[in-house]
Amino acid sequence: MNGASKNGTSPPAPAAAGPAKRLSVQLLSPVTERVPRSESKVTVVGVGQVGMACAFSLLSQNVTSDLALVDMVEDKLKGEMMDLQHGSTFLKNATVTASTDYATTAGSRICIVTAGARQKEGESRLELVQRNTDIFRSIIPQLVKHSPDTILLIVSNPVDVLTYVAWKLSGLPHHRVIGSGTNLDSSRFRFLLSQRLGLAPTSVHGWIIGEHGDTSVPVWSGVNVAGVRLRDIDPEIGSSADDEKWSEVHHQVVSSAYEIIRLKGYTSWAIGLSVSALCQSIIRNSHDVSAVSTLVRGHHGIDHEVFLSLPSILGGGGVEQIVRQRLTEEETSKLQQSAGTMAKVQAGLRL
Amino acid sequence: MNGASKNGTSPPAPAAAGPAKRLSVQLLSPVTERVPRSESKVTVVGVGQVGMACAFSLLSQNVTSDLALVDMVEDKLKGEMMDLQHGSTFLKNATVTASTDYATTAGSRICIVTAGARQKEGESRLELVQRNTDIFRSIIPQLVKHSPDTILLIVSNPVDVLTYVAWKLSGLPHHRVIGSGTNLDSSRFRFLLSQRLGLAPTSVHGWIIGEHGDTSVPVWSGVNVAGVRLRDIDPEIGSSADDEKWSEVHHQVVSSAYEIIRLKGYTSWAIGLSVSALCQSIIRNSHDVSAVSTLVRGHHGIDHEVFLSLPSILGGGGVEQIVRQRLTEEETSKLQQSAGTMAKVQAGLRL
Amino acid sequence: MNGASKNGTSPPAPAAAGPAKRLSVQLLSPVTERVPRSESKVTVVGVGQVGMACAFSLLSQNVTSDLALVDMVEDKLKGEMMDLQHGSTFLKNATVTASTDYATTAGSRICIVTAGARQKEGESRLELVQRNTDIFRSIIPQLVKHSPDTILLIVSNPVDVLTYVAWKLSGLPHHRVIGSGTNLDSSRFRFLLSQRLGLAPTSVHGWIIGEHGDTSVPVWSGVNVAGVRLRDIDPEIGSSADDEKWSEVHHQVVSSAYEIIRLKGYTSWAIGLSVSALCQSIIRNSHDVSAVSTLVRGHHGIDHEVFLSLPSILGGGGVEQIVRQRLTEEETSKLQQSAGTMAKVQAGLRL
Amino acid sequence: MNGASKNGTSPPAPAAAGPAKRLSVQLLSPVTERVPRSESKVTVVGVGQVGMACAFSLLSQNVTSDLALVDMVEDKLKGEMMDLQHGSTFLKNATVTASTDYATTAGSRICIVTAGARQKEGESRLELVQRNTDIFRSIIPQLVKHSPDTILLIVSNPVDVLTYVAWKLSGLPHHRVIGSGTNLDSSRFRFLLSQRLGLAPTSVHGWIIGEHGDTSVPVWSGVNVAGVRLRDIDPEIGSSADDEKWSEVHHQVVSSAYEIIRLKGYTSWAIGLSVSALCQSIIRNSHDVSAVSTLVRGHHGIDHEVFLSLPSILGGGGVEQIVRQRLTEEETSKLQQSAGTMAKVQAGLRL
Repeated sequence: MNGASKNGTSPPAPAAAGPAKRLSVQLLSPVTERVPRSESKVTVVGVGQVGMACAFSLLSQNVTSDLALVDMVEDKLKGEMMDLQHGSTFLKNATVTASTDYATTAGSRICIVTAGARQKEGESRLELVQRNTDIFRSIIPQLVKHSPDTILLIVSNPVDVLTYVAWKLSGLPHHRVIGSGTNLDSSRFRFLLSQRLGLAPTSVHGWIIGEHGDTSVPVWSGVNVAGVRLRDIDPEIGSSADDEKWSEVHHQVVSSAYEIIRLKGYTSWAIGLSVSALCQSIIRNSHDVSAVSTLVRGHHGIDHEVFLSLPSILGGGGVEQIVRQRLTEEETSKLQQSAGTMAKVQAGLRL
Repeated sequence: MNGASKNGTSPPAPAAAGPAKRLSVQLLSPVTERVPRSESKVTVVGVGQVGMACAFSLLSQNVTSDLALVDMVEDKLKGEMMDLQHGSTFLKNATVTASTDYATTAGSRICIVTAGARQKEGESRLELVQRNTDIFRSIIPQLVKHSPDTILLIVSNPVDVLTYVAWKLSGLPHHRVIGSGTNLDSSRFRFLLSQRLGLAPTSVHGWIIGEHGDTSVPVWSGVNVAGVRLRDIDPEIGSSADDEKWSEVHHQVVSSAYEIIRLKGYTSWAIGLSVSALCQSIIRNSHDVSAVSTLVRGHHGIDHEVFLSLPSILGGGGVEQIVRQRLTEEETSKLQQSAGTMAKVQAGLRL
Repeated sequence: MNGASKNGTSPPAPAAAGPAKRLSVQLLSPVTERVPRSESKVTVVGVGQVGMACAFSLLSQNVTSDLALVDMVEDKLKGEMMDLQHGSTFLKNATVTASTDYATTAGSRICIVTAGARQKEGESRLELVQRNTDIFRSIIPQLVKHSPDTILLIVSNPVDVLTYVAWKLSGLPHHRVIGSGTNLDSSRFRFLLSQRLGLAPTSVHGWIIGEHGDTSVPVWSGVNVAGVRLRDIDPEIGSSADDEKWSEVHHQVVSSAYEIIRLKGYTSWAIGLSVSALCQSIIRNSHDVSAVSTLVRGHHGIDHEVFLSLPSILGGGGVEQIVRQRLTEEETSKLQQSAGTMAKVQAGLRL
Repeated sequence: MNGASKNGTSPPAPAAAGPAKRLSVQLLSPVTERVPRSESKVTVVGVGQVGMACAFSLLSQNVTSDLALVDMVEDKLKGEMMDLQHGSTFLKNATVTASTDYATTAGSRICIVTAGARQKEGESRLELVQRNTDIFRSIIPQLVKHSPDTILLIVSNPVDVLTYVAWKLSGLPHHRVIGSGTNLDSSRFRFLLSQRLGLAPTSVHGWIIGEHGDTSVPVWSGVNVAGVRLRDIDPEIGSSADDEKWSEVHHQVVSSAYEIIRLKGYTSWAIGLSVSALCQSIIRNSHDVSAVSTLVRGHHGIDHEVFLSLPSILGGGGVEQIVRQRLTEEETSKLQQSAGTMAKVQAGLRL
């Protein structure tokens, strides 16, 4: 009897089992060894509100069936793992593991990093950067070590600088280090525009690019419904000359992160869904366009080695292409200003 | 020109619009008035961790596209609403409203009640009951007033007594007042059994009935894989005579709620998924079997007017039928004991 | 004992049952009567390849859990019903009924009409019209009789004229009679554009409007990727002056229906998915924009009482609004020409 | 400037492009080469009604985003590919390729074989075998050549013998050659039982094992609802002594394939859904139990090297374990009889 022969026809002999295995041996006859599989495995580092919203979105939307959680706070980590596992009958049998040891992340297709100090009410995103860089030094090399082919998806704030930091610490090619960027800002923009127009959010197209947060750039020239540009109806839309004050929609996008933090203490659901959508593009190899933070040197006249969000084609290999938007001088100048600010911050960083 | 004629052929005249409407009038030509629709509208009362896990499961699993949130804490409520709305581009355009005023719940197909003091570490479920009854007095009549045809789905703990309380306060027929009950305990049971056997949780069938929590009853006679009863392999399974100690699995189910609360402060994901699954059965009119808390007078020799979980057929009208399980004397006696304890508590309640 | 009292607490007495019911009575204890529910019920008339692709898309994408099929060919109808029912364990327990009697459609939220003679290879859509009008006379009034609040979704070809016919025969307000129109043409357009650009189809936005089929109108001015209009890159795109010959993409859209019919005998999958998406917009009350055939009198200078596709906001009540596109003179003139042709056909019809 | 350096920061230079590429080069800036990805790629061989129902189920249920079709009839093949592609905007951008050349299947996770002469009305499954073996000789080695790590999922009838044939022709280990077997029979069984009981099909558990078709074996001992065995209510259930004649349900299962073929000419939807569910178990690595045709030597006293359906644990590696059912003597004897018949057929086969 030899179950290991390549084309063997006999069932493998049952493993010698202690009493603890008696029942399952009588119930189940072995056929082949299980091999660990990680084709769509996703790791989430950091099980705070953002990390868990990412994890739960990924599972409940069936983006992955194989999730690993990592955090340094063992109790919280185990509690979150158990809570997810107890729902696995409702999650098409997804597998959830968790550990403070990065070995549990081995073979991840995507590693999402949400760890880092959370933005406090009133705190600018840029103030967080050195604190989080220090934290990343203990995370990023571990992730790459256990999943050398992974794509890093950075969510921690300030996300653009930290995506640069992750790239530098990882040694990975830049198209495999992505920041969640203004994908969320764009979703907020589309929702708020849709409310003004009385339409479904997915039927209002609009993009926010640049730096995630206060200095993000709404590209009003592209805002459209069914291909009808709002700018063709009102050429001043988004500018100070527009008496319907559509520019307020962008102000609301910027202020809403602060407002939600004031109201509920943190943001979680929308960023979780946004990250889950990015993972889906990668895992399904979709080649669809999302606004993510990517290396923008050479784009829109930017010379600095910085990460900012531009509409990017995402696929199995990460960022595959970048859409060349036609920006106004003002929009370009804002991007360049962000780039300059970030380059300065990065120059001062101890990596 | 008359857009209101039944079979009229002219587009209705655009509404007279102030400047704030100028652009949208130029973009969109009206055809018909929108009518509020509530065929699958779900209300969640209470936006704590449990309520929000329910809300997010319902949206991310596409069980409903129309969600109303109610809570008394205005800030938190608004923050949660905004956070969900900002993700609506990723949620097939689901609509989310929120208010401290129950008018926002009008026409709900299902009202989920998660409000109430959260179970504290070490606190028994029964100690919470009067506190939560007082809270329910301000919730249940409001829900029924705005949605007279609704089904109430009670999640607050102690869930069995509070489902009774909700029934009494609502004046609804008993089949339309349901407690989330041991649907979650059964899911935990199946997960833990599956881990012992090395199988998918959905392939291990087992039911926990009775009171949600410490005195719940695992029905070992029904535990099976592909129709093979574990009891036919080991007749002592689940009893103290079983040397593989499968009864520990039930102990783990009971203790895991306490353990998760100790580890992360609350339970959320699994209960959210469990509630979402129950809503799906109702909205899709599935007639599938779930363990929910329902009026059990007349079942298993119980004379008291109490709610306990039994395997129940759920459909559009609520609990349609109850599966008559063959219980052992010991199982029956445990159910009856729970029923007696609850009847006593209920007798002392100020409703 | 009185199970019928509004707030009654006793389980209803088991129905007196003949031997055939013995086992189920012992298994299941009744709680309440089942009420027929039809909130998202969808009827498909015609179980040919198109009708069945619609039916299967609706079920496999969970757009409805309650499907009724109607056809005059009893054998085929029963075979299709059985085949779907045998898969219901994989379809979240969706219910499928079928009958030659329209009573089975009662209470449908949407009635999809695919019946009619199929377009033959080489046959123009307009030649089919009187044949199918005669068929519709036996269908439409029956549907409306059994579901007076329904929305009619016409798929049979030539779809635009037949949607007009269905509207006239139904007596329904025009916003509740919709033709599947150029939703499919637009999907083909987006796919073919996406292939040229190497992107995901959902990231290439473009609309085909007007008459479904040979004389449909691609609106090149709105074609864009991430808000970047292809026309801003090449102002001649879509015209004869464009040396990359993008206008061929539209020719391919037009010819592809004929080509698929030549290759496989009929088209089915794409139209099924397209119809399923329209139903989802209605059932979820999404207010998103789709190109559907709707009454266009008063739009783009059309005076005739005809149905053509324009980008329309769909919700629970049917067509809620129409997007006012900025069309070129050439595009407008094509629309008006289609309208004129159709008005002439309609004038000759015996309704 | 060198975009190819591992950690390079400059965008790669745009490829030199002829006029045909002008627009897309101006629209899209390249970042990295696309790599073909095939983690969940599925091939379907044979684009008849069964193959296409499999393909469409896989796509519409999002089991795979990467589908390859193979057939020898070029026209039909191209027509089906185009028809699916035209719906890709509604299928989350799934990719569909098709070719008569097996190179298009390279790197498939699963290869589904539906090719072969279709069962005719009145024809026994066994009569088809040699014809289909000859066809398999041109298919199986090609599939394995292009996807050496694939799992073969055989659907062509008679499925059990042909799964054996595929195994022999493939040289693959037996756990990676699976027949769709009685997964469909079991689904039909559960639906028909559910109709008798008035429950959801997923809430009625029952297994049909053995040979797919006429001599399949219903395991009445395991039929249960919520763990309540019907046999505990009626010990004669399924036997000739049962006066409610539940055994007729199995007869209906057997005859329904013939009946559907008589009524609509072929069966498609239920087998498509059944195959899609099996693929999901493999791709998600679920370890759930399905009745599939697998090598049964050593099980239930069978000595022959034959494939029959038994409840099997499916995961990423194929059949991982087999559930040891407790069968009656009669059930065992029927299995052994099937095994004997098949061994005889196999002995006469020219492989």
